[in-house]
Amino acid sequence: MTVAPVPWPNGARCAASFTFDVDAESALLGVDTSHADRMSVISHQAYGPLTGVPRLLKLLAEHGVTSTFFVPGYTALRYPDVVRAIVDHGHEIAHHGYLHEPMRGKTEQEEAAILDRGLDALESVAGSRPVGYRAPMWELNWHSPKLLHDRGFLYDSSLMDTDHPYELAVPDGERLVEIPIQWALDDWEQYCYVPEFSGSGLIESPVKAIQMWKLEFDAMRAEGASWVLTNHPFLSGRPSRARALDGLIEYVRSHDDVWVASLREIASHVRSLGLAPRSVVRPDPADF
Amino acid sequence: MTVAPVPWPNGARCAASFTFDVDAESALLGVDTSHADRMSVISHQAYGPLTGVPRLLKLLAEHGVTSTFFVPGYTALRYPDVVRAIVDHGHEIAHHGYLHEPMRGKTEQEEAAILDRGLDALESVAGSRPVGYRAPMWELNWHSPKLLHDRGFLYDSSLMDTDHPYELAVPDGERLVEIPIQWALDDWEQYCYVPEFSGSGLIESPVKAIQMWKLEFDAMRAEGASWVLTNHPFLSGRPSRARALDGLIEYVRSHDDVWVASLREIASHVRSLGLAPRSVVRPDPADF
Amino acid sequence: MTVAPVPWPNGARCAASFTFDVDAESALLGVDTSHADRMSVISHQAYGPLTGVPRLLKLLAEHGVTSTFFVPGYTALRYPDVVRAIVDHGHEIAHHGYLHEPMRGKTEQEEAAILDRGLDALESVAGSRPVGYRAPMWELNWHSPKLLHDRGFLYDSSLMDTDHPYELAVPDGERLVEIPIQWALDDWEQYCYVPEFSGSGLIESPVKAIQMWKLEFDAMRAEGASWVLTNHPFLSGRPSRARALDGLIEYVRSHDDVWVASLREIASHVRSLGLAPRSVVRPDPADF
Amino acid sequence: MTVAPVPWPNGARCAASFTFDVDAESALLGVDTSHADRMSVISHQAYGPLTGVPRLLKLLAEHGVTSTFFVPGYTALRYPDVVRAIVDHGHEIAHHGYLHEPMRGKTEQEEAAILDRGLDALESVAGSRPVGYRAPMWELNWHSPKLLHDRGFLYDSSLMDTDHPYELAVPDGERLVEIPIQWALDDWEQYCYVPEFSGSGLIESPVKAIQMWKLEFDAMRAEGASWVLTNHPFLSGRPSRARALDGLIEYVRSHDDVWVASLREIASHVRSLGLAPRSVVRPDPADF
Repeated sequence: MTVAPVPWPNGARCAASFTFDVDAESALLGVDTSHADRMSVISHQAYGPLTGVPRLLKLLAEHGVTSTFFVPGYTALRYPDVVRAIVDHGHEIAHHGYLHEPMRGKTEQEEAAILDRGLDALESVAGSRPVGYRAPMWELNWHSPKLLHDRGFLYDSSLMDTDHPYELAVPDGERLVEIPIQWALDDWEQYCYVPEFSGSGLIESPVKAIQMWKLEFDAMRAEGASWVLTNHPFLSGRPSRARALDGLIEYVRSHDDVWVASLREIASHVRSLGLAPRSVVRPDPADF
Repeated sequence: MTVAPVPWPNGARCAASFTFDVDAESALLGVDTSHADRMSVISHQAYGPLTGVPRLLKLLAEHGVTSTFFVPGYTALRYPDVVRAIVDHGHEIAHHGYLHEPMRGKTEQEEAAILDRGLDALESVAGSRPVGYRAPMWELNWHSPKLLHDRGFLYDSSLMDTDHPYELAVPDGERLVEIPIQWALDDWEQYCYVPEFSGSGLIESPVKAIQMWKLEFDAMRAEGASWVLTNHPFLSGRPSRARALDGLIEYVRSHDDVWVASLREIASHVRSLGLAPRSVVRPDPADF
Repeated sequence: MTVAPVPWPNGARCAASFTFDVDAESALLGVDTSHADRMSVISHQAYGPLTGVPRLLKLLAEHGVTSTFFVPGYTALRYPDVVRAIVDHGHEIAHHGYLHEPMRGKTEQEEAAILDRGLDALESVAGSRPVGYRAPMWELNWHSPKLLHDRGFLYDSSLMDTDHPYELAVPDGERLVEIPIQWALDDWEQYCYVPEFSGSGLIESPVKAIQMWKLEFDAMRAEGASWVLTNHPFLSGRPSRARALDGLIEYVRSHDDVWVASLREIASHVRSLGLAPRSVVRPDPADF
Repeated sequence: MTVAPVPWPNGARCAASFTFDVDAESALLGVDTSHADRMSVISHQAYGPLTGVPRLLKLLAEHGVTSTFFVPGYTALRYPDVVRAIVDHGHEIAHHGYLHEPMRGKTEQEEAAILDRGLDALESVAGSRPVGYRAPMWELNWHSPKLLHDRGFLYDSSLMDTDHPYELAVPDGERLVEIPIQWALDDWEQYCYVPEFSGSGLIESPVKAIQMWKLEFDAMRAEGASWVLTNHPFLSGRPSRARALDGLIEYVRSHDDVWVASLREIASHVRSLGLAPRSVVRPDPADF
């Protein structure tokens, strides 16, 4: 039942992707629109597109790294110039909900409407339809894969049951490339504190976060896996965190056998392998 | 009233056991079956049996270490191949509830039914009845020891009042070997984050977790105690954590005077010593 | 839309300010006046003015550093000698609410009354009107900037969308200097624990806090930014934290190209630059 | 208004005291007696008197350190042999409530009854009346000092507004020696996790806790203060934590100019100085 490692292009040993979720204000507004009344909190989230993204684009350019930015539709409409700058730098824009909606408990119809609204927003701003999706709060529903496939998505990046990408079986014999993520490779748990919204108050040093991400990189490289880091510009765009990320990119790129790529590139490669799709199996309530 | 250290076989100075709780989806479903609707969260828990267990089995085999895996009945039914692989590698399968039920407040009848359902599931999948038990969430009730004894269990591993195993007095003059555990030797507090289920969001580096477990090993070795580490494959099966655990196993095994064993082996040894049973005394509400 | 770095006086590369929020008892009483009944908790907060401030004043004097102290009006009335000692040491007294009121959801009229009450208290104790404001809990409302401008404030320090100070556009063509802060440069998240009030229980070592603040200083210096540290005397006035802060001040001052200043000095400098004001844009609920 | 340092005996530069709160089961039962139904949780708390105290008594004896143990009355009645062993080792037994009752909101009459019940319990078990008090959860009420003075207590150790002991003014011209404590010198925040009772799940390494306590010792020594560490045997009695504490005691004792003493010895010394009493001032609700 385990997922076999996939072969990587040009004999690479593993893949690595530095991805960014540009949640900005959407992360809060999707949970409770009354956060819009909080000027300081809004400014905290606006740091992402206003200050974090430009800094991170510069950083990625210096390393020649192409990456994937997951952008809620509302964020794209609020910051069209930021999204266009990301595109102009050669990065991928992917789908991350309209208002970073918590997807738990959403019906298929509700989720479809959100997906379509986000698609429209991204297409109008970025000029092309995204092929990748990441569920807000990494909360995929069982009906989500088919909704994604029906809208022409190539891949999703919201599941966590293995270290390797695979073809996820979708009802009616279809498939969707799945590129797994994990909580330990996310900057939110390390850095995020927004009063009356998120976090216990703990804010970690970049030294600790980078140490942990580097150890996971080393171990995933040995496994031939796909190491997918998720950073949020409103968090990791802060100066010392960006600088620490700079060191991590340097470290990852210092390995000749690592394929640093966007998720679209990884998904296209996986699709080209013609893998047999596998299912993620829903627990049956009748068993409890 | 203190518990005297027990002598260990072949003049060993202390015992050490690397145990694994294969909670998988049960840990969430036992609390609230609506978690079954959450595809990403289910995949996060499925990482344990699908990816973590195979990696950890390989790791244990490389070190020649035999261990104990506590498996909820539902997990065994959902992943029979995984359980059989654990057995095939020579490890012990022990009882961990049916759906990792929170046992606080359960009546004797309710708990008996859960124990029996778990026993049936494990016996049908693993091919033999388990002799060891660990309460889900380490929450033993005062009626639990007799229920366990009546079902032929040799040992329990859910109490925390000492550093050494002992014979626990069970009503009607019976006994049950108790092998203590402790929160600081559990990976859950160090690594677990599942939104809307568990954790404040803190995720520690394996460097910190291993440092803490190693210090406790050193100190417990000096005390002649039984050092029992509890890891969850959905957490410690992740690459960098498994690698850190690899280093810890190497370290523990580098001591000639440490007996690395499964809990069944430890319990059998303790039973062979013919120790006088002791009681854990319930506080009397009339005293308050 | 990004905020350009400002030029600093005398060719300095960046600015640094060690600011102190003298919340004392107000931080708790503003949330729930019943905390007044808790003698130990009140003494915990009183540590700030009674013990922390004198120690920190001595420390700042040794380094020849002039700084800004944000003082709730009630704290000033309760500890007038402490406020006068701060003034006598050449530091700036700035506004921090009357009773450190949580400002979320406060109407314009309610907030105006609090601002006026705090102004009266500070003026009566310190002998002059403050020109700087920091919202309690860094919670500015959208109506706050105009209220501040109308009362003659020169600057605010409660927003977080950039690393550089700027002129914030205020309705009716007015302006207010904004000097941004951030959660990672605050001692509250690192050190504060008050049962039944704040904190998960985590208390960090000064080694970790100072490491993080130093890394952010290094990175912000490279960016030409304004590094603004916020400490609370009831927290960072404790001996080992004050000593660690001592080392940090020494480190910051060891750079010849850093302008260490009070926020009033920084604000006056920014005002002198004649910058075009920019807006922080409120999300429009109609967009969601 | 600040508290002046006191001179120490024999020209010592500062005082240091290793104190222990033997909360055991009382810490939970005082909050909710239904915790008595939880066998594992009770065993977790019982670790203190059963395993932690004997280990810590041995450790203190090796260093020749005399200390203070705060014992709830119920704990003394449940573990009389443990209390007598503490006395036999030459340590002080002090008052810590009857069932570690949360004191917030308790009336004078309720608190008086608890104090008397605890006094009776300690006197009957330890053979003498305690002269020291520490409020459960460090929660002193404004009426507590007089209640303590009326019962003949020499000192309290529950306030936090300074680094030095002092004479606390009690109504009617009386006094009580106060020996301050602080949250950063408590092992509970570093180590305690009890599901459905306390803690976010974070468990720190002894390396981190000891580092923090050592830094505070160094800084308080420089201030001529009284460094009072609070450990709980159910937490710091664990092997690696006791070993780390061993190193800390060694470190503290390696300074010739430090007076290591019990709180009773410190209080007696302070009383002998004939200091003018000072008040801790209650905030006046009319001011809000």
